[in-house]
Amino acid sequence: MAPSARHKASPSLREFDLIRTIHRRYSRQDRAVIRGIGDDAAVVIPPARQWHLLTTDLLAEGVHFDLRTSGFADIGFRAATANLSDIAAMGGTPLYLLIGLAIPNNGRELQVNQLYRGMMAACRPHKVRLIGGDVSASSAGWFISITLVGSVPPHRALFRRGARVGDGIYVTGTLGDSLAGLELLQSRSGSAGPPLPPRLRRWLVGRHLRPTAHIAIGRWLSTERLATSAIDLSDGLSGDLRHICEESRVGAEIDVAALPLSPACRAFAETGGSEPSALALAGGEDYELLFTTRPRHQARLEYEARQHGFRVTRIGTVRPARAGIRIKLPDGRRRPLPQTSYEHFRSTT
Amino acid sequence: MAPSARHKASPSLREFDLIRTIHRRYSRQDRAVIRGIGDDAAVVIPPARQWHLLTTDLLAEGVHFDLRTSGFADIGFRAATANLSDIAAMGGTPLYLLIGLAIPNNGRELQVNQLYRGMMAACRPHKVRLIGGDVSASSAGWFISITLVGSVPPHRALFRRGARVGDGIYVTGTLGDSLAGLELLQSRSGSAGPPLPPRLRRWLVGRHLRPTAHIAIGRWLSTERLATSAIDLSDGLSGDLRHICEESRVGAEIDVAALPLSPACRAFAETGGSEPSALALAGGEDYELLFTTRPRHQARLEYEARQHGFRVTRIGTVRPARAGIRIKLPDGRRRPLPQTSYEHFRSTT
Repeated sequence: MAPSARHKASPSLREFDLIRTIHRRYSRQDRAVIRGIGDDAAVVIPPARQWHLLTTDLLAEGVHFDLRTSGFADIGFRAATANLSDIAAMGGTPLYLLIGLAIPNNGRELQVNQLYRGMMAACRPHKVRLIGGDVSASSAGWFISITLVGSVPPHRALFRRGARVGDGIYVTGTLGDSLAGLELLQSRSGSAGPPLPPRLRRWLVGRHLRPTAHIAIGRWLSTERLATSAIDLSDGLSGDLRHICEESRVGAEIDVAALPLSPACRAFAETGGSEPSALALAGGEDYELLFTTRPRHQARLEYEARQHGFRVTRIGTVRPARAGIRIKLPDGRRRPLPQTSYEHFRSTT
Repeated sequence: MAPSARHKASPSLREFDLIRTIHRRYSRQDRAVIRGIGDDAAVVIPPARQWHLLTTDLLAEGVHFDLRTSGFADIGFRAATANLSDIAAMGGTPLYLLIGLAIPNNGRELQVNQLYRGMMAACRPHKVRLIGGDVSASSAGWFISITLVGSVPPHRALFRRGARVGDGIYVTGTLGDSLAGLELLQSRSGSAGPPLPPRLRRWLVGRHLRPTAHIAIGRWLSTERLATSAIDLSDGLSGDLRHICEESRVGAEIDVAALPLSPACRAFAETGGSEPSALALAGGEDYELLFTTRPRHQARLEYEARQHGFRVTRIGTVRPARAGIRIKLPDGRRRPLPQTSYEHFRSTT
């Protein structure tokens, strides 16, 4: 941490003033936080008899976010959501946040404030406390590092390994919306097909810029022991399913006709002439949860999900590793799942 | 975390392979680490009935480190030490490390491996486990984010606030060596004065490139309740003493004649014609501990330090806030402490 005055971010952006402003704005009194921002390290009282979850991400301008398509508040919101979603995928409860920020010479205080505002907006519903961080100059673009600490009851963490042959493969929500939203942001000129109604456009762009981390669903799956494995969809179904299969040493078959699609995503696909299931398979950053469930728990899973108002959809079945990872097309043909993992923004240089 | 294959760091540097290599090399079986690298988040069993310490740093090429004066292993070592030192200054025990790395297009796997090797070399004496991280592309230079988690017994953390008027001001080790080492690295052409013996030169350069985090001293100060406040010297005495004074709402008087100087630092100052105490006041990154001790504990502090083989030196006294922060010169004159905090490398652009 060491939130000191040593690095001038820019002549107008003094680290120390910034840290103070952020401290004043976001530090909350809390019995579990003995000391937040402003010492050599944050001091917290961890929840008793819980396992701890720790996740960190380092995000680079031009690679993970693009200032041409996202405002600073949206970038902050998405960066925090990506980490909250990692905790959700473990079945955990997020607790504390630490933020590192490298600010280019032309960075302005308003932009920094917007970034923090976006991050804290994503964290607020989960009562996550900002307890520390580091602000420095960058000789290049913006870099954001986020570390999130959470907890989970002992022996209740959901891992990527654990899927067993015969398990049902499920996802929450709908898939492909974030990629559709991103494509809408990137192509300002409009498309060849009929125009997308503004309401649907706004909804898809919102799904990209302000995604949801499914903390409550993850905790429910963990508490009720309903999932044998879980991951969040940050890379897209193709890539993330592969992680589950590799870690669990199994194969999978996905029923393309079963992929849950939003009306907006379907309408977007029609305007562009593309296949909505392709968006669902390749699209990343939906931050829905992908998980597997034992056959004997599936009826209870689906019943309880309805009771809680959670949307879960069975999209396939865990197969033996030798079967590989396949998709079943609507006409019944089977073929290997294409490796079209979503690569976000490639490096711009 | 999400150590996934989504971002290509460079054509030859695939994130997924890198994560796997690092995982294989540094993951150790450990009853406290349920899951390290390779899931959505790391899962650890925290030590029972301890407070937790969390610190994070984001380091930028050209700002915090310079590839012209440091190799990758040294950069890694120093980056890890900076964080270990934050835990030392809290009186804590470091436990887990998470590393985020943004790699420029021309980054090579060898360099990444050297960085990790340096970081783990600094951590090994303290049995700190690498439990997670993130690797991605950078459209600019190298960026390193480090998050370190530690623990401290309840009510034993050492804070910056807590210094009281009349307390003695102490430092561990000697001051100014790291800045002398850096100046030696930066001026290859040699100086005007007599040449520095190679043995002293190597020692000073080593103090800059391979500093020590004083974990054992911090724990001792905490366990024995010997310090009323503490900070580590990362910005230099001028800057870090100011943090103690601001947080504790006190002033201070530093006796320049008492500043502990190494023979090498004195010899270096003579070759350059500069005042060694100026190096000690302004120099940063010594990672010595600066702390304050009640008058009634000072005899025990100094006696026990000798028993343990710890070097501690009293360099001044805590004064009322209205007195400001002053230095007493060898001739007895007093003047305000200059604000010459060490600013590391300024941004290179």
